[in-house]
Amino acid sequence: MDIHDLKGKTVGTAVSGGLDSCTITRWLTDEGVKVVCFTADLAQPDEKNIDDIRHRMLACGAEDFVLVDARESLAEAGLRVIQAQAYYEGRYWNTTGIARYVTVAALIPEMKEKGIQILSHGATGRGNDQVRFQLATNMLAPEFEVYAPWRDEAFLNRFSGRGEMIDFCEERGLPITASREKPYSTDANLLGLTHEAGILESLKTPAHFIEPGMGRHELSAPDEPEEFIVRFERGRPVQINGQPITVLDAFLYANAIGGRHGIGIGIHTVENRFVGIKSRGVYESPGMELLGTCYEMLLQLILDRRAREVFETLSCLVAKQIYQGYWFDLATQMALQAIERTTELATGTIAVSLHKGNISFVAAGGAPHSLYSEETASMEAIGDFNHADSEGFLQVLGVSARALAAAGQIKE
Amino acid sequence: MDIHDLKGKTVGTAVSGGLDSCTITRWLTDEGVKVVCFTADLAQPDEKNIDDIRHRMLACGAEDFVLVDARESLAEAGLRVIQAQAYYEGRYWNTTGIARYVTVAALIPEMKEKGIQILSHGATGRGNDQVRFQLATNMLAPEFEVYAPWRDEAFLNRFSGRGEMIDFCEERGLPITASREKPYSTDANLLGLTHEAGILESLKTPAHFIEPGMGRHELSAPDEPEEFIVRFERGRPVQINGQPITVLDAFLYANAIGGRHGIGIGIHTVENRFVGIKSRGVYESPGMELLGTCYEMLLQLILDRRAREVFETLSCLVAKQIYQGYWFDLATQMALQAIERTTELATGTIAVSLHKGNISFVAAGGAPHSLYSEETASMEAIGDFNHADSEGFLQVLGVSARALAAAGQIKE
Amino acid sequence: MDIHDLKGKTVGTAVSGGLDSCTITRWLTDEGVKVVCFTADLAQPDEKNIDDIRHRMLACGAEDFVLVDARESLAEAGLRVIQAQAYYEGRYWNTTGIARYVTVAALIPEMKEKGIQILSHGATGRGNDQVRFQLATNMLAPEFEVYAPWRDEAFLNRFSGRGEMIDFCEERGLPITASREKPYSTDANLLGLTHEAGILESLKTPAHFIEPGMGRHELSAPDEPEEFIVRFERGRPVQINGQPITVLDAFLYANAIGGRHGIGIGIHTVENRFVGIKSRGVYESPGMELLGTCYEMLLQLILDRRAREVFETLSCLVAKQIYQGYWFDLATQMALQAIERTTELATGTIAVSLHKGNISFVAAGGAPHSLYSEETASMEAIGDFNHADSEGFLQVLGVSARALAAAGQIKE
Amino acid sequence: MDIHDLKGKTVGTAVSGGLDSCTITRWLTDEGVKVVCFTADLAQPDEKNIDDIRHRMLACGAEDFVLVDARESLAEAGLRVIQAQAYYEGRYWNTTGIARYVTVAALIPEMKEKGIQILSHGATGRGNDQVRFQLATNMLAPEFEVYAPWRDEAFLNRFSGRGEMIDFCEERGLPITASREKPYSTDANLLGLTHEAGILESLKTPAHFIEPGMGRHELSAPDEPEEFIVRFERGRPVQINGQPITVLDAFLYANAIGGRHGIGIGIHTVENRFVGIKSRGVYESPGMELLGTCYEMLLQLILDRRAREVFETLSCLVAKQIYQGYWFDLATQMALQAIERTTELATGTIAVSLHKGNISFVAAGGAPHSLYSEETASMEAIGDFNHADSEGFLQVLGVSARALAAAGQIKE
Repeated sequence: MDIHDLKGKTVGTAVSGGLDSCTITRWLTDEGVKVVCFTADLAQPDEKNIDDIRHRMLACGAEDFVLVDARESLAEAGLRVIQAQAYYEGRYWNTTGIARYVTVAALIPEMKEKGIQILSHGATGRGNDQVRFQLATNMLAPEFEVYAPWRDEAFLNRFSGRGEMIDFCEERGLPITASREKPYSTDANLLGLTHEAGILESLKTPAHFIEPGMGRHELSAPDEPEEFIVRFERGRPVQINGQPITVLDAFLYANAIGGRHGIGIGIHTVENRFVGIKSRGVYESPGMELLGTCYEMLLQLILDRRAREVFETLSCLVAKQIYQGYWFDLATQMALQAIERTTELATGTIAVSLHKGNISFVAAGGAPHSLYSEETASMEAIGDFNHADSEGFLQVLGVSARALAAAGQIKE
Repeated sequence: MDIHDLKGKTVGTAVSGGLDSCTITRWLTDEGVKVVCFTADLAQPDEKNIDDIRHRMLACGAEDFVLVDARESLAEAGLRVIQAQAYYEGRYWNTTGIARYVTVAALIPEMKEKGIQILSHGATGRGNDQVRFQLATNMLAPEFEVYAPWRDEAFLNRFSGRGEMIDFCEERGLPITASREKPYSTDANLLGLTHEAGILESLKTPAHFIEPGMGRHELSAPDEPEEFIVRFERGRPVQINGQPITVLDAFLYANAIGGRHGIGIGIHTVENRFVGIKSRGVYESPGMELLGTCYEMLLQLILDRRAREVFETLSCLVAKQIYQGYWFDLATQMALQAIERTTELATGTIAVSLHKGNISFVAAGGAPHSLYSEETASMEAIGDFNHADSEGFLQVLGVSARALAAAGQIKE
Repeated sequence: MDIHDLKGKTVGTAVSGGLDSCTITRWLTDEGVKVVCFTADLAQPDEKNIDDIRHRMLACGAEDFVLVDARESLAEAGLRVIQAQAYYEGRYWNTTGIARYVTVAALIPEMKEKGIQILSHGATGRGNDQVRFQLATNMLAPEFEVYAPWRDEAFLNRFSGRGEMIDFCEERGLPITASREKPYSTDANLLGLTHEAGILESLKTPAHFIEPGMGRHELSAPDEPEEFIVRFERGRPVQINGQPITVLDAFLYANAIGGRHGIGIGIHTVENRFVGIKSRGVYESPGMELLGTCYEMLLQLILDRRAREVFETLSCLVAKQIYQGYWFDLATQMALQAIERTTELATGTIAVSLHKGNISFVAAGGAPHSLYSEETASMEAIGDFNHADSEGFLQVLGVSARALAAAGQIKE
Repeated sequence: MDIHDLKGKTVGTAVSGGLDSCTITRWLTDEGVKVVCFTADLAQPDEKNIDDIRHRMLACGAEDFVLVDARESLAEAGLRVIQAQAYYEGRYWNTTGIARYVTVAALIPEMKEKGIQILSHGATGRGNDQVRFQLATNMLAPEFEVYAPWRDEAFLNRFSGRGEMIDFCEERGLPITASREKPYSTDANLLGLTHEAGILESLKTPAHFIEPGMGRHELSAPDEPEEFIVRFERGRPVQINGQPITVLDAFLYANAIGGRHGIGIGIHTVENRFVGIKSRGVYESPGMELLGTCYEMLLQLILDRRAREVFETLSCLVAKQIYQGYWFDLATQMALQAIERTTELATGTIAVSLHKGNISFVAAGGAPHSLYSEETASMEAIGDFNHADSEGFLQVLGVSARALAAAGQIKE
């Protein structure tokens, strides 16, 4: 789909209010396209004044501006990811990816209401977000078209970088706030920040280079540890430090306390983008990391060996699906439905101590589905485990071990 | 196999020189069994004077005492585990498990030389180590028998706990060093420490409770960060901070610097033992954690998406196999042989900064097989990636996304 | 648990009415145990007269005999296995394993009603069925004990084989029907037959050696093909050859027609028993094979690539869990709950042709969730797939392919 | 890449000599491109006279024609796939996919020798083969470009179907042999035939519709069974029915005898193409199916439970990689290197009986690494397996089963 397909039509554009948003809105308008701007409120930590965004978009030529509150649905989506322990390639929570789905799901009904069937976004042609915007839209509203200026030759030929966009906007007196010098770019929402591009593309730039937006580097975190106690019921955080809490507030609170102690701030990853190229990002997600770690401590009490193996397989799958644009498809539904069985069992209270980037286990309790038993675990007590039974157990295991040796299959 | 099968025979006992070793050696002797004691030198951080162990074992009735140097083979085994990134259930390196295989492999040839075909060990009937001792022995020397006093009714009836063993030894004037009060038990080797049992069995005991044996808790680590630069060639650490180094020295050095900064000290895990019960451990493995994290940072540059997926699957498998007693069987060989292909590509230099339990990425380079390219990754540059191609890419992906929607398979 | 623990107590024994059942019942009675016999009606194709079994068991000393109708629950369990496509190690449906769970689940409430808390079974100490009886009982009724004479030294010392059992019964005038010469043993239920042991233990015995109990070898099947048309709705067979049908009748019908044409008769497998030894079996399961193959043909229309990959992973898992005794645990529940999402989509009609062991695809249709589209699949038609888009698609894929080559990672 | 990029350059075209080959060669020539035609000899069962192809290509305007013998390398590739048991989505051997890699690997050195750096192929823009041609070329010769007329707008606009190509050729008097009416299209090589498109796109067309090219439908196969005995040494077939044999001859022989008995003829599959659409194919691969089944019977003797699980995971992976274009990348290398450990153990002789599409086990032997032992497997014999040990084994397993019940995790 390119600009020629759009002339005279109305496009719904997902905007953040930044330089890209302004440039695209005005350029489209100049090309004879009617533009309606949509912004999802994702409880961004760097949240700008929404009225400013509205004002700016209208000044750039937008026919209308619509704000959609997606804070709770983002919190719920974040929780499902925690319940699935779905971090991507290593330990990075992919908070940007999650928000793309939430945004598309929030915008589509609003667009439909206005009779708009073309969704436009500002994601580039090398990234993952374009895939998420595209596939989420194709799945949730197959009758929609998706337009991405950064994949359109006409737009690409007009704007080869940041400088030209600023020139374009300044020449037209558009109210942009962008500065020419920006060492890297940042995507922000309730669940976390993603820092990429610019100077971060050099592998000589340390992870500490980024300026945290959700707290502090552990280097400058307080000297005093702080305790954090969270109670989960059926997989949902219901109480923090003794106070009842909603899911949205749980994230806000965990972001604040986690960020203060440098939890999940400055996570460096070189990852495989879906389009097949490596990219480097530095991430912040204090609340996801804190709640997610506590949730994992709770799961350790509950999942037996076999359940844990399935769980880990499905965790990886969900993370991959989110990363690659497939949050809504059947494979994800299958995985989440399986994980739901563990969520139902995830009731318990976890206490941890936070200190300079570290989350240290303090205590666990109140978990009716826990398999942990002090008595059974004990190496000394007799309890329900008869040590002598182990002799038979091991003799049985030994039969196959020796058979392998006899068949010449063992290699030291 | 029980004590009645042993009378008059010679048993080779794996001993550490502690209370168990003394008690078992003397009890077996009293029961008419000839005992030869074997100790593997595993470069334990708490290494006692070996002469003391020899003296003590002979005093307890052993006919002979043999020391086997297994330091280098343990370092090599540890490296293979790092190359496989094989941590168990979460992020715990299972250093005790690894050492059991190294010990059995080291002792068996020595026992054969002395004509001994019964291996005895002091692992309990509820733990994992009994499984590793048994299966490793059955696989490497199927003609051997394995005797475990802690699974023998006669021994279990005689000794129900630590107190009775101390009484037994004191009554006989054996030179034990054990104290009656020991809050938990610790297994130690070059790769790490495992703290379990006693007061650690309560989930009200914080991870910080343990007294570190390989460094400090991050709480008391230095305020100043320290840089650590390691060069890997074909998967092996060959240089640290500019100095050429052997694998064994790499572990010793990484233990020292990592331990000083609280890296990998006090890792709490509630895990699924092979026998099917949950147990709680607190772990230390500063060197494994430090070298292992740097190795993972290097792999991030090298493994494409598909290779990474296979790698992760096999990592989990190797970890499970080590945990469950199957280090030497065909499945492990298969996995390690696959991973070997990635090891060959793992050349590069990683610099990190260590500070109070945190390992922060500083720089990477010198990696000829790296897939990371600043030019290709860039969102702005043109390079070899034509943004407009992505339009076709996404249109193709969109066909199936829409087909899923048309078939009623999508669920928000 | 051995015979000494049972004296004076009441044991509920799962019996088939054969030689084992008679011997065990009488031997237990002789040892001072009260025996109540339970038989699950599993719609065995070789179903004996139930009154005969009752008469025989009472003659052997049983205090009571209870028949439990488990035909429908077995059919439902079989269907779930088909829906999960959970065949074990290759293509064998493990029909015996499934029935063990159904039997235990059916007997426990009856035993509870009679105040019995000890379940006894005749499975041997080397097989898989002992594991299934044990774990199913431990899971569904943890307060129960399980007694297995074939693991009890006293019983093993008394009876070393078939001959001694026949002698024992004949000396006591028990109404057994067993013959001394039996070339192999067979377990039977609605879902299939398992032939093992005896002459089948030799790998020189061809699969054709068995005498089919559910139909014919393909060698003697009719020369004329026969068509079989099954309609599934939400994963359940609702119509066969145009006639509405229940699940139980679907199995009965598919057994009859499939068996007549040699479908799934004489499947040879050398498999890994849970206790770690290899065993050889020859299997019959015409109905499972026929319905299962049609179901797979339907799934081929419905599952996209990603869903299929999850499905296949979970299929293997369910098969392993059933095999190893874990049908009721959390891992199985997770897998089945995931698969349930695909079951809901499995509506469609499949026609196949049956001929001498072959099931050949004839037609498919009526599948609203099918992803197959003649138009889209066509290599020639234009439709919704723009061939030129593929150029961009492949250029994007090519970037990473070339990067791998540039990094020296490719090997021919 | 489109026709404008090619003018005046030399293109190496992979041709089969059919209608597509003629049309593309002449069209390119007409457009000012120099064309050199390459044909890989893949021991196609429908092998045309190579001189005819040469003559025809030159008549269509080719500057040169090169025949490359790839028969042995195709046989070796087929064997590796059998060793990996890598059939795709169900039980289909993907013989066309394998041959694409062999072809590219065979042609590239020849093209390099002639100074050609553009490879052209006739695969369509909706299929999988375009992906294999592209990625294999990009990986083995990253400096090459790939040109696919069926993704080029200019070509697509000129030729919308078979009819126009025939007109084009007839108008120019080109020596084509194609008929206007062709019910479906077929790709052929030593390993198998792939029938697709045309009337096969209707799911109302039975699998029996195809005219077999490598044997007969089982419906018309001989009434008499025939025995087939193959000996594998270290994974390679070295003897069939007592005669020493090369790998290439093993395939030729197995194709002949298997085809005669309807083995692997007419396999229907609806599969997920890499581009995300479903397609339907009917396949023939009698030799792969026959040798592959015998190899699986051998593996059943050798792989323990854990090894088998890894093997099955890697089998699926290799099949997926082959299907999707990644035969040469790191993930495939890893998988094949793991599987190599099992190949080394795969020595043994398998005898089967062939009859009307069925392969029935007759006997196995001569397998030094077999884990199967008649003595151990026996339910009756005492041997090395002490039945009473199983009591301890099961008591140990029962502890966790009961713990699950106590924690409320069991669901019937």
